[in-house]
Amino acid sequence: METLSTAKAHGGVQGVYRHQSRVTDTAMTFAVFVPPGGAERKLPVVWFLSGLTCTHQNAMDKAEYRRAAAELGLIVVLPDTSPRGQGVPDDEDWRFGSGAGFYLDATERPYDRNYRMYSYLTDELPALVAVNFPADMTRQAITGHSMGGHGALTIALKHPDRFRSASAFAPIVQPTTAGWSRPAFEKYLGRNPKAHRAYDATLLIEDGHRFREFLVDQGDKDSNLDDGLRPWLLKDACAKAGIPLTLNMREGYDHSYNFVSTFMPDHLAWHAERLRE
Amino acid sequence: METLSTAKAHGGVQGVYRHQSRVTDTAMTFAVFVPPGGAERKLPVVWFLSGLTCTHQNAMDKAEYRRAAAELGLIVVLPDTSPRGQGVPDDEDWRFGSGAGFYLDATERPYDRNYRMYSYLTDELPALVAVNFPADMTRQAITGHSMGGHGALTIALKHPDRFRSASAFAPIVQPTTAGWSRPAFEKYLGRNPKAHRAYDATLLIEDGHRFREFLVDQGDKDSNLDDGLRPWLLKDACAKAGIPLTLNMREGYDHSYNFVSTFMPDHLAWHAERLRE
Repeated sequence: METLSTAKAHGGVQGVYRHQSRVTDTAMTFAVFVPPGGAERKLPVVWFLSGLTCTHQNAMDKAEYRRAAAELGLIVVLPDTSPRGQGVPDDEDWRFGSGAGFYLDATERPYDRNYRMYSYLTDELPALVAVNFPADMTRQAITGHSMGGHGALTIALKHPDRFRSASAFAPIVQPTTAGWSRPAFEKYLGRNPKAHRAYDATLLIEDGHRFREFLVDQGDKDSNLDDGLRPWLLKDACAKAGIPLTLNMREGYDHSYNFVSTFMPDHLAWHAERLRE
Repeated sequence: METLSTAKAHGGVQGVYRHQSRVTDTAMTFAVFVPPGGAERKLPVVWFLSGLTCTHQNAMDKAEYRRAAAELGLIVVLPDTSPRGQGVPDDEDWRFGSGAGFYLDATERPYDRNYRMYSYLTDELPALVAVNFPADMTRQAITGHSMGGHGALTIALKHPDRFRSASAFAPIVQPTTAGWSRPAFEKYLGRNPKAHRAYDATLLIEDGHRFREFLVDQGDKDSNLDDGLRPWLLKDACAKAGIPLTLNMREGYDHSYNFVSTFMPDHLAWHAERLRE
């Protein structure tokens, strides 16, 4: 693992790192914030998964998580949203290819070689974080924005024992049918509906996956509400399955980091409560 | 004035605006955050001047002022750092031209037509802000980062009755002799030392300008400390002149927005105290 940059911030250290991933067969960049106290003891970890078109940089610049994470003693990890680089298949459509890995393992050629973000995030990167940072891997939480909210919900549903808590900002709750994600699902996974269901929060719940509770914030002026996001589908699925869901519809907020940064302290505090020793 | 974008953030509104400036003879873009409460009453105004290479966007994305400004009830205005666009003289040197207006009025050709940021910021833009936002112009404060710290200190020294408080993050305190700024001063103002002194905080103080007190934060791992910034020159000038200066040397911090965002809440709280009705 190579350190690209570190800077002191809010008493902790904001770093950017790169490593050669055997899972995606590319170099992968990610950011980690270690709050004050990381030199003395292991600290709980919050994963923040970003949305379409983003790298680690967008949330690092704009999500305003450092002050709250420093106060609460949380490590925050920001992975990239896809493999990138020479030889990695890409597409002009922003909903697909670079910046649009959708946190799944592609099975279709030529994407199956690199687009394996699910395995990268659930296997390789956690192992790297555990070794290189003062991370207490028995205390992990996961959250994300938009496509990253989809990632957080689906990964939590498939790893209920790994994550103590899971939340999302304006998540794509049913990617198999949303205009933003359906084309990518078909290209990465083919047209087999069963393969799609394995990466769809609402359908995972239908198929019996469970998590102890979810926190979701959603702006009601988000222009993607009716087509891409549709939080009511998650509400229905959770209600039927008996999963407690706190869905905060936030009056006047859009889909941007103005929205994410506003409610970031609430989410981090909510996770911190559930990550107590 | 044209509204380019608005978004709800931390209960207030983060907007970006453009207008045709008669002072710079260009279109000028700036950002304004209006905290909650702006619909009911006029609110105090904090000007944040940005550093070299920046537009309004850098601080808007990375300075993390909105949460504190919302809590404290402060309007925050982020101007651009120079005129820009077709026909505006520019230079490949990042220390000069676009993004490097140095908050002065150029007197040398061909820069004197557009590079008039001092008049723009002390005359035209305040008038525009007063008319278009719920701003109590009897309660103004000014701050800034690096080149913008230079701007904040010099403008405060020349307008002690307009600003109730002035602070700076890692300011260029003596631009007439700093490597970052001397070339620009010579191009904009010629080689007349007297013209230079009118835009140099330490020399303005030497020449009798006064302000009631300054707050300055400076990272001790800032790689520009010895050449570009040299806060001890301001300390000496203030000590000689009897101007109270709180100079916080911050251990381990660099020159980036990681530093600025960490101490932004302190600065805004400090200004808010002095902006009370």
